[in-house]
Amino acid sequence: MTTIEKTAQSTMHVLNETHNPSLKSWVISANNSSCDFPIQNLPFAIFKQKGSEEAFRGGVAIGDQIIDLAALANKKHFKGKVQEALVACAKDQLNDFMAMGKLAWSELRSALSKALTEGAAEQAVIADCLISQNNAVYALPCNIGDYTDFYTSINHATSVGKKFRPDNPLLPNYKWIPIGYHGRSSSIDVSGQTFKRPKGQTKAPTAEVPSFGPCKRLDYELEIGIFIGSGNVLGEPVSINNAEDHVFGICLFNDWSARDIQGWEYQPLGPFLSKSFASTISPWIVTTEALAPYRKKWTRDQADPQPMPYLESELNRDVGSFDIQLQVLLETEKMRAQSQAAVQLSQSNFQDSYWTVAQMVAHHTVNGCNLKPGDMFGSGTQSGPNPEEAGSLLELSNAGSEPISLPNGETRTFLEDGDNVIMKGWCQKEGAARIGFGEVSATILPAE
Amino acid sequence: MTTIEKTAQSTMHVLNETHNPSLKSWVISANNSSCDFPIQNLPFAIFKQKGSEEAFRGGVAIGDQIIDLAALANKKHFKGKVQEALVACAKDQLNDFMAMGKLAWSELRSALSKALTEGAAEQAVIADCLISQNNAVYALPCNIGDYTDFYTSINHATSVGKKFRPDNPLLPNYKWIPIGYHGRSSSIDVSGQTFKRPKGQTKAPTAEVPSFGPCKRLDYELEIGIFIGSGNVLGEPVSINNAEDHVFGICLFNDWSARDIQGWEYQPLGPFLSKSFASTISPWIVTTEALAPYRKKWTRDQADPQPMPYLESELNRDVGSFDIQLQVLLETEKMRAQSQAAVQLSQSNFQDSYWTVAQMVAHHTVNGCNLKPGDMFGSGTQSGPNPEEAGSLLELSNAGSEPISLPNGETRTFLEDGDNVIMKGWCQKEGAARIGFGEVSATILPAE
Repeated sequence: MTTIEKTAQSTMHVLNETHNPSLKSWVISANNSSCDFPIQNLPFAIFKQKGSEEAFRGGVAIGDQIIDLAALANKKHFKGKVQEALVACAKDQLNDFMAMGKLAWSELRSALSKALTEGAAEQAVIADCLISQNNAVYALPCNIGDYTDFYTSINHATSVGKKFRPDNPLLPNYKWIPIGYHGRSSSIDVSGQTFKRPKGQTKAPTAEVPSFGPCKRLDYELEIGIFIGSGNVLGEPVSINNAEDHVFGICLFNDWSARDIQGWEYQPLGPFLSKSFASTISPWIVTTEALAPYRKKWTRDQADPQPMPYLESELNRDVGSFDIQLQVLLETEKMRAQSQAAVQLSQSNFQDSYWTVAQMVAHHTVNGCNLKPGDMFGSGTQSGPNPEEAGSLLELSNAGSEPISLPNGETRTFLEDGDNVIMKGWCQKEGAARIGFGEVSATILPAE
Repeated sequence: MTTIEKTAQSTMHVLNETHNPSLKSWVISANNSSCDFPIQNLPFAIFKQKGSEEAFRGGVAIGDQIIDLAALANKKHFKGKVQEALVACAKDQLNDFMAMGKLAWSELRSALSKALTEGAAEQAVIADCLISQNNAVYALPCNIGDYTDFYTSINHATSVGKKFRPDNPLLPNYKWIPIGYHGRSSSIDVSGQTFKRPKGQTKAPTAEVPSFGPCKRLDYELEIGIFIGSGNVLGEPVSINNAEDHVFGICLFNDWSARDIQGWEYQPLGPFLSKSFASTISPWIVTTEALAPYRKKWTRDQADPQPMPYLESELNRDVGSFDIQLQVLLETEKMRAQSQAAVQLSQSNFQDSYWTVAQMVAHHTVNGCNLKPGDMFGSGTQSGPNPEEAGSLLELSNAGSEPISLPNGETRTFLEDGDNVIMKGWCQKEGAARIGFGEVSATILPAE
């Protein structure tokens, strides 16, 4: 199933006609400048209609609609690789489509872009396959075989490090290695997830022995999720120069964390039950190709160690970073009861990441580890350089010592039952279309 | 796909007619007292005939033969749940069979036991489905969704802890928590695996900065692999009393480790690339039911903390441990060239584990984490109480400072290219049939 592509250099950053900001769609809702899903975006999800007995299948967002890719495949309007891609997208997971590789992803994107453009001859064919996003429910976009969580925000690593290891916040390996660890894939679910507050062992610093009970320091983590498209064979590392050809796309990711459970369990082998009770992703995967207008230079401070050769390339220096704005909002039970809008807790940007997506891929495979289509990376909590830009409550409340005041008079150190955490992400600038990620939201239920 | 079983108490330890040591099979090779696969064992694998274009499918070992379960399903000789189980076993992975739950596993075992017994009416039907193990190649027994590695040998944890943290070998949480961490499932392969020595970042204690190159401290880890059969729903912990009903069976497991890569990367989030380059399992899964005669009391020293209630039960005290003898052998390239037999490096026993399988399951799910059919646990390196019973070279060579002398004049601190590491496991005692695990072997290729 895995397609290996050996290109000299990744081309995911190259602009083409699909990125043209002046493109307009005959799907009118897509032309609103605040829309997350204009014709330049075209993200993928797995969906079905609410309350229906239909099978889940692939869809592409356009404005407030979804193109039902199974219905479109059935029309047999398209030919060749585009039709093959549609057939792959008609399944209840996108793994097979992801495995087809970047040429297939790009050809389907190009064909849909043309067919959705104002005046396209294909309007009638596509219009017949549109379903309103209001009527949709989503499933995981793919079977996530392995999930790896990185730790790429140096701002987060430093401020969290202070709380776990006050004397030694940033460990000596941080600036050399894109630190990551294996995560639990079974407990990843899609936006809308509800989950019970986890129980577990914790030990207060002053306690003689640990105790057992519901987590008292439940937190979110503002991350992005990175989906592997085409994989690599065990024993064959992916070079940094073509790393991004293996990356299908990006979603929003809330990597819930039980800080008190983590503090007691994580030595010496890393976080375990503090992470595996729930992790939530947004339904839409924005393709790496769609993000091409939002690539930025990646730089490293001269005073810092420069990357080892396997983590270094001109391409990565030139366009390695992604300018993705990220936001966390909180809606408490009280706010819901009083129909108050969710309030923003913080904003940050993925471009502040110390390590790039290409470096994550190159590092992950340098030992020969094989990536498979549908594998997911978490970026690690993305905290900006300023304290108010932190991507977790651990940071915002200074480990629970400084409660945050909410506009309605409530306060928070960590999350409470009934809290709904919402994360949004988007790319926006002059001269390019807005590329939105939609949102990921999930709600905490009381422990049993 | 997942079947949830809510029994008051696990019954996997209960003896029945299939365990009767006096049973003999009409497959004569199964009646040899040194055979790993007598009629009392009946382990499962996924296999096909060497060099054939056939699909992989399920098989059960008997003596030196394999019952081709796809062929047997096609015969439609059996009815009801047994036939349903055979149909599930006819696929190229055992996940669906595992998901059917303990009643299905047990009924198929019982039916095969009867059909293989001397004088059985089914002899002709089964005989028609036998394939010699000499003609078989194996694949992974199932799609391993998530792999978790535990750290259950206190002897291993203490002696390894000394090398990484001389001042603090056994961390304060060890005797409270069955410590585990998420592992990489994509790089798990079946016995016979060859893999290139991994490359990566390492840093000598005296070096200013890290360097990059092939691992210099490549090691094996003598573990068992534990396969989850029926899963649990996210948010619904499995109680220790019925934990074993979720355990399909056990195999041998070599969790290769790059000690120098691990030493530099593992803080603060645990081992990552030091583990994900290769992990090797034996092809045959011995069912928990087959191991019933080899259950032992699990005890804990009065001076140690007693387990928290979710890790404690009378059943676990009575029969929580498994008496499984484990052995590591090394065959170097030189030995192969000179047709010398592999030499034993150490032996240990899984009954020395500080934590039981039931405790691993109860702990893993206590936060609500969902296990799925086919998920695998590693037991962690099983080192016995005496230094010569250590399950890794890190321990046997005292972190590389005391080379081991091999009978042919070679020495080893860590593994060298061309080394083939072989692990064997078996249960044996008076009054019960020998239950063997076969072996897991894999060979190290030079770094590229």
